[in-house]
Amino acid sequence: MEDHITPRRVVILGGGFAGLFAARALRRSPVAVTLVDRCAHHLFQPLLYQCASGILSEGQIAQPLRAVLRRHHNVRCLLAEATDVDVDDRLVHARRPDGAMISLPYDDLIVAAGVRQSYFGHDEFAEHAPGMKTLDDALDIRRRLFRAFEMAESATDARERQEWLTFALVGAGPTGVELAGQIREIAGHTLERQFRTIEPGQARVLLLEGADSVLAAFGPTLARRAARTLKGLGVELHMGAMVTGVDERGLTARDRAGRITRIDARTVLWTAGVEAPPLAGVLARATGAEQDRAGRILVEPDLTIAGHPEIRVVGDLMSLNRLPGLAEVAMQSGAYTGRAIRHAVEGRTKQPKPFRYLDLGSAAYISRGRAVVKVGRLNVSGVTGWLAWLFIHIAFLTGFRSRLGALLTWLIVFASGSRRERAFTSAGTRAPTDPAPPAH
Amino acid sequence: MEDHITPRRVVILGGGFAGLFAARALRRSPVAVTLVDRCAHHLFQPLLYQCASGILSEGQIAQPLRAVLRRHHNVRCLLAEATDVDVDDRLVHARRPDGAMISLPYDDLIVAAGVRQSYFGHDEFAEHAPGMKTLDDALDIRRRLFRAFEMAESATDARERQEWLTFALVGAGPTGVELAGQIREIAGHTLERQFRTIEPGQARVLLLEGADSVLAAFGPTLARRAARTLKGLGVELHMGAMVTGVDERGLTARDRAGRITRIDARTVLWTAGVEAPPLAGVLARATGAEQDRAGRILVEPDLTIAGHPEIRVVGDLMSLNRLPGLAEVAMQSGAYTGRAIRHAVEGRTKQPKPFRYLDLGSAAYISRGRAVVKVGRLNVSGVTGWLAWLFIHIAFLTGFRSRLGALLTWLIVFASGSRRERAFTSAGTRAPTDPAPPAH
Repeated sequence: MEDHITPRRVVILGGGFAGLFAARALRRSPVAVTLVDRCAHHLFQPLLYQCASGILSEGQIAQPLRAVLRRHHNVRCLLAEATDVDVDDRLVHARRPDGAMISLPYDDLIVAAGVRQSYFGHDEFAEHAPGMKTLDDALDIRRRLFRAFEMAESATDARERQEWLTFALVGAGPTGVELAGQIREIAGHTLERQFRTIEPGQARVLLLEGADSVLAAFGPTLARRAARTLKGLGVELHMGAMVTGVDERGLTARDRAGRITRIDARTVLWTAGVEAPPLAGVLARATGAEQDRAGRILVEPDLTIAGHPEIRVVGDLMSLNRLPGLAEVAMQSGAYTGRAIRHAVEGRTKQPKPFRYLDLGSAAYISRGRAVVKVGRLNVSGVTGWLAWLFIHIAFLTGFRSRLGALLTWLIVFASGSRRERAFTSAGTRAPTDPAPPAH
Repeated sequence: MEDHITPRRVVILGGGFAGLFAARALRRSPVAVTLVDRCAHHLFQPLLYQCASGILSEGQIAQPLRAVLRRHHNVRCLLAEATDVDVDDRLVHARRPDGAMISLPYDDLIVAAGVRQSYFGHDEFAEHAPGMKTLDDALDIRRRLFRAFEMAESATDARERQEWLTFALVGAGPTGVELAGQIREIAGHTLERQFRTIEPGQARVLLLEGADSVLAAFGPTLARRAARTLKGLGVELHMGAMVTGVDERGLTARDRAGRITRIDARTVLWTAGVEAPPLAGVLARATGAEQDRAGRILVEPDLTIAGHPEIRVVGDLMSLNRLPGLAEVAMQSGAYTGRAIRHAVEGRTKQPKPFRYLDLGSAAYISRGRAVVKVGRLNVSGVTGWLAWLFIHIAFLTGFRSRLGALLTWLIVFASGSRRERAFTSAGTRAPTDPAPPAH
């Protein structure tokens, strides 16, 4: 190990769960951490659908990174997007929102840049079928959802009205299932008796999925129960459906038998897959690292890149033992890697143990009082599942006030079915996978 | 009076205070009300600066019009922007968000379309100096405020850093004063100890005003006290200053002596004046009504347009006896006009009394524990003013939950100085006076 006169410089790319937990694990180490993210906030991604559906505000699920880390005096947060890594000179190049470039030298690099929505080679779908990965996406979806009912109310012919009252969701993982449940609740409860021309409760919600079941990752038992709950809510399930086209008035899908169906729906939302951002390709070329089919970077058992012990990849962007893209994996891998650097700085020479993911279970919310939770071999659903969901999400929300605020909001929402955050802006829509345009 | 077999049709343009109070006053009348607004929500405009400065969420100051009016079974809300009035055929033409046009026949028309920010013939200023009239504006300003500190933190030279830490506000009416106080509080309290390179407390806030004092409408005593409070907060006051140019790095202003000063400030906000929207010109040409200098429409003592007893103009857009553009005037004129139509429908033939504004006072918030309130000849400031401010705003916020939520949020903000709604999106900026682009 070298001796450093200046503290060892750790650069973390990404302030999601992985990056945040890495920074936290380095709190008491004599290192200088720079945390770079193109957003200034840490987003509690598992509740993003509640922001999109008008239950929670942006501030309830997103907190400034520098507020979360204010007592971590060795961490500096920078609002910039990493664009390139120079592995020989150990430099990260990043672009600030005004387009200016900055360079950040590192001794250790932690890449926690996450993944983005994938359209499986059909990026042109994005314009009419936004994904849901960022706060911008959630507000875009909120606008589309509530505006669709407004458009139906003022529609002048019955066919157009029905199109505005049809919502097609592509992808039946947790996010798709959660959104489907939310839209049926909005239609059936939140908007009840607030329209004069349309009957919002008649809105159709279609959930399309290429695989054979909803929530496949939860195993057949919970998948079956979730499907039953969704059907009970009035969600129409289309399994084994591959989307072949999306436009502003709907989509076309091919079923297992090769039949093409047209679905007229003015609102199409996409949660079907993820892919690595361009930075992953840059990093793979620079280090010789392999990428999996989604572009994620294959890592060693200690989460470093082969041949580059100074570069670690954590969270959704790492590819290791087919671990799922869950918040819990991101937290644990981030914390592991922060600890590994701390131990190295402390001069521990013992080879670190390989990363092991401790499966604490996973949960998906379906509707008021209904959720599915899987903990090891234990399957919980219905009201019990929902209570477990509530406990997990309260426990993990960042910040005391967020927890209290969310809990109070949920009490009101679950008791009354009304939603506080229905106001939407009129800002133009944009393709959600595009980087934000530089300001000015 | 004619007999109508179908109920008398009342079209209200605008869902601000004036339009909302007109609709409410018609609740028990056998009329069919159509309320048209280009936003789906009623905005509690007096608290917009608190949304811009990260205290309140959108949902706390904006509620769906149809939710507010859900028990008004004779009111239909439509999301559209009125573009033209055909006074002969008694038709309003309006554009839906997707660009489609709809026509709405009326027997009575209530124009409550409000005013927008005025740049006094320099609309090119808008790009770099957003106004604050809509929810979009507030979120744009929130993004600019918090991003400025982020940019300062990552700035690579001292001059650029100082530019990002300089905020210039044009216009020292209530909104300008409130924003100035908010920015100093954000800099001095909210962001304390959250940056590693900059000292946010050193941010400069300049308040420029063409007149000779801040809050001129509150009279000399309160104006003097407000100026003292602002100076105590560190706000630099530049009275008698006319802005002659704005660009992305600052502005130029001319003082009374004709001297031109350049102010380098990467954030410029504009609250200096208002003007009528294009609809006012359309209406004036169609009816022969006169407009005042800001384009507001001159009305008769009963708030109708001369020669057009079926058309009434209320709220900020009406020009009558130099009444100020206050929420209270809008509420009272809206309610007056709704009652006048109700009385006419009920067959009362007595000439209605002219509209009289009952001045309940006005208030401006300066900082935590400091506000100025004017009620008739009574001037209240300091902590007493602030308590009066608190009471007034709680009393008038629409909806029980908004009130409770705002009160709880304020308790936390006033006790701790922290703000919950600091998360901002990365959406591109836009000129705030532009109409929203048509959505698909």
